[in-house]
Amino acid sequence: MTTAGRKIDAGEIAEPFSVAVRKYIAEEMHGHGPKLVGLLANGDPSAKKYAEWTGKACRRDGIRYEVREVEKDDLLEALESANKDPDVHGIIVYYPCFGAFPSFYGGTMDDFLRDSISIKKDVEGLSQFYRANLYRNIRFVDDAQTQKCVLPCTPLAIIKILEHLNVYDKHQPHGEQLTGINITVINRSDIVGRPLAAMLANDGADVYSVDIDSLYLFRRGKLIQTDETPATACKKSRVIITGVPVKDYKLPLEWVSENTVVINVASFKNVDEAALLQIPGVQYVPLVGKVTVAMLQRNLLRLYENFHMKPKKFWQ
Amino acid sequence: MTTAGRKIDAGEIAEPFSVAVRKYIAEEMHGHGPKLVGLLANGDPSAKKYAEWTGKACRRDGIRYEVREVEKDDLLEALESANKDPDVHGIIVYYPCFGAFPSFYGGTMDDFLRDSISIKKDVEGLSQFYRANLYRNIRFVDDAQTQKCVLPCTPLAIIKILEHLNVYDKHQPHGEQLTGINITVINRSDIVGRPLAAMLANDGADVYSVDIDSLYLFRRGKLIQTDETPATACKKSRVIITGVPVKDYKLPLEWVSENTVVINVASFKNVDEAALLQIPGVQYVPLVGKVTVAMLQRNLLRLYENFHMKPKKFWQ
Repeated sequence: MTTAGRKIDAGEIAEPFSVAVRKYIAEEMHGHGPKLVGLLANGDPSAKKYAEWTGKACRRDGIRYEVREVEKDDLLEALESANKDPDVHGIIVYYPCFGAFPSFYGGTMDDFLRDSISIKKDVEGLSQFYRANLYRNIRFVDDAQTQKCVLPCTPLAIIKILEHLNVYDKHQPHGEQLTGINITVINRSDIVGRPLAAMLANDGADVYSVDIDSLYLFRRGKLIQTDETPATACKKSRVIITGVPVKDYKLPLEWVSENTVVINVASFKNVDEAALLQIPGVQYVPLVGKVTVAMLQRNLLRLYENFHMKPKKFWQ
Repeated sequence: MTTAGRKIDAGEIAEPFSVAVRKYIAEEMHGHGPKLVGLLANGDPSAKKYAEWTGKACRRDGIRYEVREVEKDDLLEALESANKDPDVHGIIVYYPCFGAFPSFYGGTMDDFLRDSISIKKDVEGLSQFYRANLYRNIRFVDDAQTQKCVLPCTPLAIIKILEHLNVYDKHQPHGEQLTGINITVINRSDIVGRPLAAMLANDGADVYSVDIDSLYLFRRGKLIQTDETPATACKKSRVIITGVPVKDYKLPLEWVSENTVVINVASFKNVDEAALLQIPGVQYVPLVGKVTVAMLQRNLLRLYENFHMKPKKFWQ
């Protein structure tokens, strides 16, 4: 079968990032990398599998990864203990854990856990502090601008993929490299679609954010009502990102124009791959996990350099 | 008709607080009190009426109250301008304004507006900063403990009512004055029921928090699952607070034990008053608005003293 489009392996995009992390830990840290702790309390086999997979990638690159399986009732204590432990440099909690169960502090227990991770160890960048900075386009932790904020791993992975595919115009200044480009993101969750839309809008794009019952335009710190539909938004988009957590959802291919970049972040295949690749000039990234793990590793080094060592070495 | 219970006028409870504010402004500020700005953009006649009512009470006591009616699209700018104006000491935004319309920053636009009020002017105490302190039982803005946090007006009004009715045991230390007391709160909104439950739990009570589809126990910084039902929770409660925003809702009176304090915070009458007052020893507060406005005034003086004058005078 000949194809008009091109399928892209995320492994290729992740590789140089992983190599840089591995080399740095081997040469500068004598192979004794920072320590990442994963807290697993939800009894979900797919979370366990993801944790194992992350562990394998970390061990390959010299990062000490440790899964701690705990009962739900002991999770907050385990988190606080990891927050305090000077030999722990990054913490992941595997969600959903308490689901919609509310917290004394407002919001859900899962929100509360997410906000309870120390900003020095929040390798996923999803706590209130980093979220607020992301949405306000504040890129540094400190006033002296020496400590860059971490960004959430999956949205960051997509940015790196778009850079790799030259969707970013590197000749433009920061904040303008996506100016004039339309992007549709089909997902508006707090951990993927919404921060991704905000990050792309911060870089200059017009982002159509689609969820099950609404469509908004994100443009430079503003969320705007629009008459576009998912179909019209996709048709005018240079990039379409699908993240629909539903087995049977398939992106209607009549919405995809020629030369579009299509990225699937869902764990389900949101796209009929064979048919998509018949569209001329399409570039398709079916999985992003390897780039996400590479970003997790980079975030861990970022936190390590920001808060655990001076002077910085990995980032100049 | 003879009644076994007693009905209590909130005006009586508000009076000494209003008098203290009026006297302080007259004597210490030469009648030129702090300035409170109300931002009205929702076109809701009942919000306008509430604003007028607040204005009347403020003028009576020497507080300069100004309503600013603006278009929705100009509201954020009007808020930022009031934040910056050194002659404005307190800001109220009348909600709902954008309803469920989401913000670029996460949450809804109304949440974003609420969190955008300067902590120096957040007279309702509903921004993220004061909410976080309330839920964590942090009672001061500063480490030196000279600047007390403001608390949300309606929940604070209910605390003052319960103090007035001697439900608080003033012989016990702070944080223990409601120990051993069960309270049911039928409402878990972010602006009334939830902060109220947290405040009562911070003072030692076991608080049953009831909403349309769930019931949780708030106890000293913890939210706990329980087998109680609204009926069993109310029956064992010394205090029942109703805040159901539904015209036809009436508290089932077979749930009310003798000697219970019943407080209605809803704008609808959630209680059949005549029948309730047949229950021996019941104390019933049908409206709390006057105490709420007195708390708003106290919060305004609190902010004024915390951030606009030294040394403090109203609070020693």
